[in-house]
Amino acid sequence: MLTELKREAYEANIALPRHGLINLTFGNASAIDRAKGVFAIKPSGVAYADLRPKDMVLVDLDGKIVEGKLNPSSDTPTHRRLFLAFADIGGVVHTHSSHATAFAQAGREIPIFGTTHADYFYDNIPVTRKMTVKEIGGGAYEWETGNVIVERFKKLDPLDSPGVLVNRHAPFTWGKTVAKAVEVAVAVECIAHMALMSLTLEPKLKTIEPELLNKHFKRKHGPGAYYGQK
Amino acid sequence: MLTELKREAYEANIALPRHGLINLTFGNASAIDRAKGVFAIKPSGVAYADLRPKDMVLVDLDGKIVEGKLNPSSDTPTHRRLFLAFADIGGVVHTHSSHATAFAQAGREIPIFGTTHADYFYDNIPVTRKMTVKEIGGGAYEWETGNVIVERFKKLDPLDSPGVLVNRHAPFTWGKTVAKAVEVAVAVECIAHMALMSLTLEPKLKTIEPELLNKHFKRKHGPGAYYGQK
Amino acid sequence: MLTELKREAYEANIALPRHGLINLTFGNASAIDRAKGVFAIKPSGVAYADLRPKDMVLVDLDGKIVEGKLNPSSDTPTHRRLFLAFADIGGVVHTHSSHATAFAQAGREIPIFGTTHADYFYDNIPVTRKMTVKEIGGGAYEWETGNVIVERFKKLDPLDSPGVLVNRHAPFTWGKTVAKAVEVAVAVECIAHMALMSLTLEPKLKTIEPELLNKHFKRKHGPGAYYGQK
Amino acid sequence: MLTELKREAYEANIALPRHGLINLTFGNASAIDRAKGVFAIKPSGVAYADLRPKDMVLVDLDGKIVEGKLNPSSDTPTHRRLFLAFADIGGVVHTHSSHATAFAQAGREIPIFGTTHADYFYDNIPVTRKMTVKEIGGGAYEWETGNVIVERFKKLDPLDSPGVLVNRHAPFTWGKTVAKAVEVAVAVECIAHMALMSLTLEPKLKTIEPELLNKHFKRKHGPGAYYGQK
Repeated sequence: MLTELKREAYEANIALPRHGLINLTFGNASAIDRAKGVFAIKPSGVAYADLRPKDMVLVDLDGKIVEGKLNPSSDTPTHRRLFLAFADIGGVVHTHSSHATAFAQAGREIPIFGTTHADYFYDNIPVTRKMTVKEIGGGAYEWETGNVIVERFKKLDPLDSPGVLVNRHAPFTWGKTVAKAVEVAVAVECIAHMALMSLTLEPKLKTIEPELLNKHFKRKHGPGAYYGQK
Repeated sequence: MLTELKREAYEANIALPRHGLINLTFGNASAIDRAKGVFAIKPSGVAYADLRPKDMVLVDLDGKIVEGKLNPSSDTPTHRRLFLAFADIGGVVHTHSSHATAFAQAGREIPIFGTTHADYFYDNIPVTRKMTVKEIGGGAYEWETGNVIVERFKKLDPLDSPGVLVNRHAPFTWGKTVAKAVEVAVAVECIAHMALMSLTLEPKLKTIEPELLNKHFKRKHGPGAYYGQK
Repeated sequence: MLTELKREAYEANIALPRHGLINLTFGNASAIDRAKGVFAIKPSGVAYADLRPKDMVLVDLDGKIVEGKLNPSSDTPTHRRLFLAFADIGGVVHTHSSHATAFAQAGREIPIFGTTHADYFYDNIPVTRKMTVKEIGGGAYEWETGNVIVERFKKLDPLDSPGVLVNRHAPFTWGKTVAKAVEVAVAVECIAHMALMSLTLEPKLKTIEPELLNKHFKRKHGPGAYYGQK
Repeated sequence: MLTELKREAYEANIALPRHGLINLTFGNASAIDRAKGVFAIKPSGVAYADLRPKDMVLVDLDGKIVEGKLNPSSDTPTHRRLFLAFADIGGVVHTHSSHATAFAQAGREIPIFGTTHADYFYDNIPVTRKMTVKEIGGGAYEWETGNVIVERFKKLDPLDSPGVLVNRHAPFTWGKTVAKAVEVAVAVECIAHMALMSLTLEPKLKTIEPELLNKHFKRKHGPGAYYGQK
């Protein structure tokens, strides 16, 4: 069932260590079939080298396992929360990539300092508020992780800001497809690395000028985009 | 004799350079057979590329070489001390991985800043006190290195804190199996790298909130764990 | 048409990710045939792994596409501007290599601290002024990017300073051939990394002494050069 | 002639990029036959990928080319100076490895902070004084580079301190064999990286205690050494 969706999710998962975004088993990717309301996600704690397309677990938007012998990722409720809240996304990626996680641990947004960042995000990369004792310990920790992300996006467009840092934790990214979510995950790590170094050079560095941000983001997104092939 | 144990130790040793934890010959791994009271350890100063399973040296808990033509690692007495003190561990790994060693050289614990750390350790990664002139020069330096680790763990559970930084030296990690000790060594290096960057961003960053620490550690360890497969 | 030129441009483009200078599709290289007034450049937004020599787009110095089914790089007008202004260069390379981009984002020149830098540049690696709202939004952004580079070089020899950081953006490099421009791009990234670390060690570090700069630059460039083979 | 010596020098040269110590063509290695007074060295500016054992150039201790069609490395007089001054060394390696070069550019010794350093050097890694205008411009720059190294070692044993940072330039290392000089070059880069990070953590960090330095250095060097195999 949904062989193509499982393959798509599988390809995204194995791309993560290849891009140097994953140590050990810290990460996962999922892809959704909106018509069926079912998403395919990595099984929990399985080494990337051992993963096969058919190991992907199929879960519906109520959280019920539709197909699969293995436990889905422990982060499955976070993915589900995001698929429910952000109607236009087709895939979600979670990594503990080192530089982005350093910002997340410090509870800091990644300031938008240059055009690389502006090619992917229309603002700083946001960070969630810290979770409360009740949200953490109340028995639905991973679902509540999704909730604090959704709360942070109350006034943000998830396609203008296709990712977030979960406070004390690590980045989540998304996109129209899971392949795009992987691409954003690569960009976020690269952007975090460069931002950290720019801050080392200029601790009080101001963020990018609005006109340059606008130009670069719009060059790649929306009706006036002219980057890439038609 | 103990062919399987030697293979297990061998696999752990050659995994270390593959994970980027080892430069040159700086490191070693050992695996113990508790029933026989014998452990298999890397021979001293042999290049990883030249290593074969049968080169592993078998040593008993009195420090006597049971089998093997090569000298065992010069750190063998440290491994032996840890196997004697920590009854539940099945393997020990020593590396000079760069970021963890930077903390060790500075005599600093690695502060617990995020969930990646909390997935592996239930507290800061501890550092030993400095060794005395007598401990260093008294003829049993490597055994005394084990002793200062054991002293540091007087009030710590070695499975809640499956590793340590030896002051001025480098990390040792352990686990129920030597494969797990390798996994912890990878995690320690990654955690050290991210902690160093978080400190660059926020020199006065506070450590993780207790409820989040508890949640992440218990998600992976103990009776309520639900990460991974059954 | 111009098969050899397209191959040269292709080889330069695929060398960029191999040297670790490129994440995703952030970069491009072009090579010019001065006799024909035509240059070959990477198509826009195509993954490096999928690129073939025949995908290179041929563009003339008026900006007209001479051959090619794909859209040329969105940065094509910047390359064209540089080929028009700097008569002696045969190739242009643009990357978002991490360390050099960190300086560009901060609007900082890369100070010349050692002989590695002096082997390639006769001075600090320059940075352009910020672009105006009109230059960014007036409909010819990439051409104007070339213009601020040319403005910065009013008193500089482009072969003595074979590269530049575009403010808030990233490096461009060039050379007598596109292969040389790639070599300079590698050097710029390496120089930026080392300069950042030297600044960490000595925030007020002075630049290299003139006689040593002179010696190293002239050892490799100009009539008295004696580095390499005849 | 001297086929084995050329192979030894060749193997050392191609090991340098494999260990990540070399960008482009920044580096060279040489091996000497003391009985014949001849050393084999890399040709100047040849890419490592294109190098063959027979390309090594044979040079005698007067600086005369004994065999070889290519120009020897432009750093040949520095190697020659070191072979003349340090009677016990069999090989010399020069790299621009990034972290070590960052210290050299800043004119800073690498402070001895831990046992990794003490396994290779009996003190801080020394840095030369800056060269004078006359030494740089007098026509024998590379020979004078050797001279400032030799001057720095007036009171140092070159086997207790098997390497140096040339001020504003980069590291040179040596050893009883050129393979050992390569090993030291790897260690120097790793030590520099860790020292830089330890300094980030503790800007006023003191160097290692004498007894621990002594223990680690002597564990590997001299009559009481017990590391490795007999």
